[in-house]
Amino acid sequence: MAGQQHVSCGRDLHCVPDISSSTQLASVAGFDFAAMPLVHPRFKREFLEGKAKDRQGAFARSDLFLSSQDWSSLVVGKLSPWLQLDSEDETTRKNSQAALKQELAYAAHLSVPAVLVPLTSNRCANLGRCLLSHMQGHSNHQVWIQVPMCAPSRLTDDLIENDTKQRSGGSNSSLDDSDIIPAGQDPWQWWNTLRRVCHHHKRLGVALEISTDLPPQSVINRWMGEPLKCAIFSTTLFLTNKKGYPVLSKAHQMVVNKLFRLDVQMMITGINRHPDKGIRAYQQYMDHLYQNQQPLTGVEAFAKGYEDYLQCPLQPLADNLESQTYEIFEKDPVKYTSYQKAVFQALKDRVPDSEKDTKTSVVMVLGAGRGPLVTASLKAAEQADRKIEVYAVEKNPNAAVTLFTLKEEKWGDNVTIVQSDMRDWSAPEKADIIVSELLGAFGDNELSPECLDGAQPFLKDDCISIPSAYTSHLSPIMSHKLYNEVRLCKDKDKNQDAHFETPYVVHLHNVTRLAPAVPLFTFTHPNKNSLDNTRYMSVSFTMEEEAEVHGFAGYFDTVLYKDIVLSTNPKTFSEGMFSWFSIFFPLKEPVHVTAKSDLVVHFWRNSTPRNVWYEWCVSEPVTMPIHNINGRSYTIGM
Amino acid sequence: MAGQQHVSCGRDLHCVPDISSSTQLASVAGFDFAAMPLVHPRFKREFLEGKAKDRQGAFARSDLFLSSQDWSSLVVGKLSPWLQLDSEDETTRKNSQAALKQELAYAAHLSVPAVLVPLTSNRCANLGRCLLSHMQGHSNHQVWIQVPMCAPSRLTDDLIENDTKQRSGGSNSSLDDSDIIPAGQDPWQWWNTLRRVCHHHKRLGVALEISTDLPPQSVINRWMGEPLKCAIFSTTLFLTNKKGYPVLSKAHQMVVNKLFRLDVQMMITGINRHPDKGIRAYQQYMDHLYQNQQPLTGVEAFAKGYEDYLQCPLQPLADNLESQTYEIFEKDPVKYTSYQKAVFQALKDRVPDSEKDTKTSVVMVLGAGRGPLVTASLKAAEQADRKIEVYAVEKNPNAAVTLFTLKEEKWGDNVTIVQSDMRDWSAPEKADIIVSELLGAFGDNELSPECLDGAQPFLKDDCISIPSAYTSHLSPIMSHKLYNEVRLCKDKDKNQDAHFETPYVVHLHNVTRLAPAVPLFTFTHPNKNSLDNTRYMSVSFTMEEEAEVHGFAGYFDTVLYKDIVLSTNPKTFSEGMFSWFSIFFPLKEPVHVTAKSDLVVHFWRNSTPRNVWYEWCVSEPVTMPIHNINGRSYTIGM
Repeated sequence: MAGQQHVSCGRDLHCVPDISSSTQLASVAGFDFAAMPLVHPRFKREFLEGKAKDRQGAFARSDLFLSSQDWSSLVVGKLSPWLQLDSEDETTRKNSQAALKQELAYAAHLSVPAVLVPLTSNRCANLGRCLLSHMQGHSNHQVWIQVPMCAPSRLTDDLIENDTKQRSGGSNSSLDDSDIIPAGQDPWQWWNTLRRVCHHHKRLGVALEISTDLPPQSVINRWMGEPLKCAIFSTTLFLTNKKGYPVLSKAHQMVVNKLFRLDVQMMITGINRHPDKGIRAYQQYMDHLYQNQQPLTGVEAFAKGYEDYLQCPLQPLADNLESQTYEIFEKDPVKYTSYQKAVFQALKDRVPDSEKDTKTSVVMVLGAGRGPLVTASLKAAEQADRKIEVYAVEKNPNAAVTLFTLKEEKWGDNVTIVQSDMRDWSAPEKADIIVSELLGAFGDNELSPECLDGAQPFLKDDCISIPSAYTSHLSPIMSHKLYNEVRLCKDKDKNQDAHFETPYVVHLHNVTRLAPAVPLFTFTHPNKNSLDNTRYMSVSFTMEEEAEVHGFAGYFDTVLYKDIVLSTNPKTFSEGMFSWFSIFFPLKEPVHVTAKSDLVVHFWRNSTPRNVWYEWCVSEPVTMPIHNINGRSYTIGM
Repeated sequence: MAGQQHVSCGRDLHCVPDISSSTQLASVAGFDFAAMPLVHPRFKREFLEGKAKDRQGAFARSDLFLSSQDWSSLVVGKLSPWLQLDSEDETTRKNSQAALKQELAYAAHLSVPAVLVPLTSNRCANLGRCLLSHMQGHSNHQVWIQVPMCAPSRLTDDLIENDTKQRSGGSNSSLDDSDIIPAGQDPWQWWNTLRRVCHHHKRLGVALEISTDLPPQSVINRWMGEPLKCAIFSTTLFLTNKKGYPVLSKAHQMVVNKLFRLDVQMMITGINRHPDKGIRAYQQYMDHLYQNQQPLTGVEAFAKGYEDYLQCPLQPLADNLESQTYEIFEKDPVKYTSYQKAVFQALKDRVPDSEKDTKTSVVMVLGAGRGPLVTASLKAAEQADRKIEVYAVEKNPNAAVTLFTLKEEKWGDNVTIVQSDMRDWSAPEKADIIVSELLGAFGDNELSPECLDGAQPFLKDDCISIPSAYTSHLSPIMSHKLYNEVRLCKDKDKNQDAHFETPYVVHLHNVTRLAPAVPLFTFTHPNKNSLDNTRYMSVSFTMEEEAEVHGFAGYFDTVLYKDIVLSTNPKTFSEGMFSWFSIFFPLKEPVHVTAKSDLVVHFWRNSTPRNVWYEWCVSEPVTMPIHNINGRSYTIGM
């Protein structure tokens, strides 16, 4: 079902008189899969009592109508629409339970890739239990919860329930939010209740019914943090263009583009409203939109295939980086250009034109790696027409091999290679400018503060540090996907919650940012007064929408020199830069927040002489246990 | 420090010029322990900057003043009152952190049994972190969080802060609740925030300052679910009796009695206000109250020493009970008397006086154990002057040995012993009355429904079952203690949360019931129509006070026959009966509930042909994952 070069688009079939010819039909029409009822809609089943209790015969079509290959790749099974798992009437409920069990078992028997389960209310604890009970068993298929994007107005309600009726007028009148989403009728809450009952099961997904009247942007964005597997477009959503073909409004196109980014499959439901063009026209239009997506940005292209993939943060002090890691990051089109500008400006400021031929500045590159900052500094000096002497200090002996080669072949005598940890080095002279690139995804998390403090003894009093400051930033996020990814990281050798007490470097993708990022810890250099790099701060966020908080995304920005800055904060992102992903601090238990409420989190940066680590703790809306107390699950080694 | 035959009562010392003579003094005065500052109050310590930064000398008295035996049994260490771990001022905060660390380390060095930590605000995340950090280390002492019972009015505030001031008038004017507890100023919230930050650490306790004006009963009761270790009584709380001795008001005496039940230690603070009687008069009065407590009730006496002790529920179908288990329960003074009454009444109703000599009723005791119900039935028949023939059916061959002996020695020919499982027995005739005692702490949890359904084939159409019905009851509870007890039950052979997905039989003690119990599942016998013993129900509770829900207490009541009932529900408890404790269904994560809010929980009784189990799930105020899905952590074997 996965489409790479074209969009995967399915067809919702309500009535399937002959299953093999219907799928053939849909298939001919260019669709990739079809959703169809699992059992015969008119084969009444009564499990407890009633005339049909002892009815003989097959409740569904035989599996022989399709090949097993087709069942497992082309068919999404639809549950019977009459099931009421949470009915107050015990007979209805128990009969529904028995029927659900039978249908799910048949779906597993057929090996369909997914089952479509309509959700119509917040009252779904027993449905959730029955689905979880089934998922804990031996089946493998996904469970797609079919839910509207926002509470249906009466109009769209009718359309969904009975899409053969003609669409009536007035659909373009814009309803205000309170009309669209009456209190207690937010379908996201239905979904959230169900998935919480199911403990965020990883095989749960959302089949989102796209609504005619789109909800506010914050509601659309909230869906983007959910495990969207399928987007259901009613044919009634489509307008007709001049040539008579079905097309979507600009607003709907925007939604479709967001869905494409998440590799969501599309599904067309409802009768063909453009019969002269054939049902295929809807699929072709979707594919047209897919082919005309905006190209990926630098970091998106770089991260392709690694979306939401959790990495443990680098520990460059404790471990040595590999050659290919250096090679990748040296290619960043933004970072070294900015460093070059910063060194250029610093040299200009430090050495007036009148002294440019007499005064030589000592530039120390601390953590030179394979030399990109040395090259940038030399270029900057040439460009600024200033004399510099460069020390390239690098602790990794393997990288130092490259440095010696580059000195020999390119840099010449003005560059001195020092193979040493900057914290141990006895420098022969003091520095005018130090240049370093020790920042991690969260700024200070690769121990830049501790390293640069170690260089303090060989800095001139008015030494310039590039970067001169950096600040970490934090934003609460919702992501069913990431919560499950963290759960998979469980490590038998560590304490039972260690994987939830570890930050991860990750390219955030199937994620909703619940509030703008706010600044957390700032470090400035040179750091003459206090060598205390421990920090404690609590920050507060105001939630836009009701949501689940699964953790915090961390970013940073840094002032290299004066107005030359780099940032990974989405609001101020340095376009084109790909050197850093984000960092993700998970929460052991999702924290439920209501719209407009405050979320307060406390962050600590603690240390011993050997280690540095973060601890974090939510205190509003409800106090949660401290994560990673005393660095029990994760520390950064000095 | 633990007192069994007399109350353990300590003395709070504010200023201790000579520690060895002061403790001697207190000891002479009959106190069991003393609370005193850990460090010299006038030895100013500045860790970051200031004149005192490099001050030489000892910050505390030497450990040599007392023997290590005395330090570890007589002294509760008080932290310095000036510590402000959550100050907005960074210097104050970091200085407080350093001082706290020093004092806690010294307390650990001295091996004092507990440290007293004053808590004055909801803003205590950093204090919590520092305490947790310390408790995760190598210390063993308890951490007593000193917190007022309710928000101090200005009056009591002054008294606590400076108890040498004379108590002014007006203290008897009753303040209404809103005066006592201004919004956001509930000290229980301070404590709750702190302990949640500390993840309910098991060495955290409460040292409760008893207030002059007592809060509402619901607030007092809420404290009784907390880990109370010490109750602090200011000398200003005491009235003076006719003979000039200090005494407490009736209302305060009620509180003291509740505290005694929880083995809370007492502490007297403030200057002696009855100097002619000596400070010892306060301790003597406390001991007087202790000696004059109400005697324990039947079940309290029976459970002495087993309070809050978690047992796995009996599985009498899968396992055979031991002789001593039978022996203990046969002694219940209420249960068998009630059964006898029930059989008496049933025989009277079934056989009119006119037929008493001609009609013999077949009474089957199903699960006869060592015979108490056989004896009760025979006595009832004699008392009713009705003829009966008794079958004593028992599956446990070891208990059957006793039955054969009793038939031989006491019961005679009217009793037939059947060593068989009632579900497999081919009865030679049908029963008029069946008598059974298959109920567990939660009613149906020892599979009485399944057993009695198995007896259905050999019941006459109008057979009477004793019991004729039973209903489980549920009530949400708060208990820091039980939450920690469950945590200790972790079993390496089971899934990581299995111990939180298992119900426990327990005598509830250090527990607050947050709402009255409501009925859950009802079973009636004989059960002719439906043999479906699965159940599903959601129940709702309205919270009286803001609280943490740690789980649900389960009880049951049963109608033996007509108006003859037994109940373990606290509201209708069968006084004197001790055969059943309660059952406790834990929650993996405590659920925070606000005052007047609703708590909704779903309970399922599910089964396969081999097993029965419960599942449970909270859905309001927030949806939590289902516990024990598919019986993965706990089932009851058939």
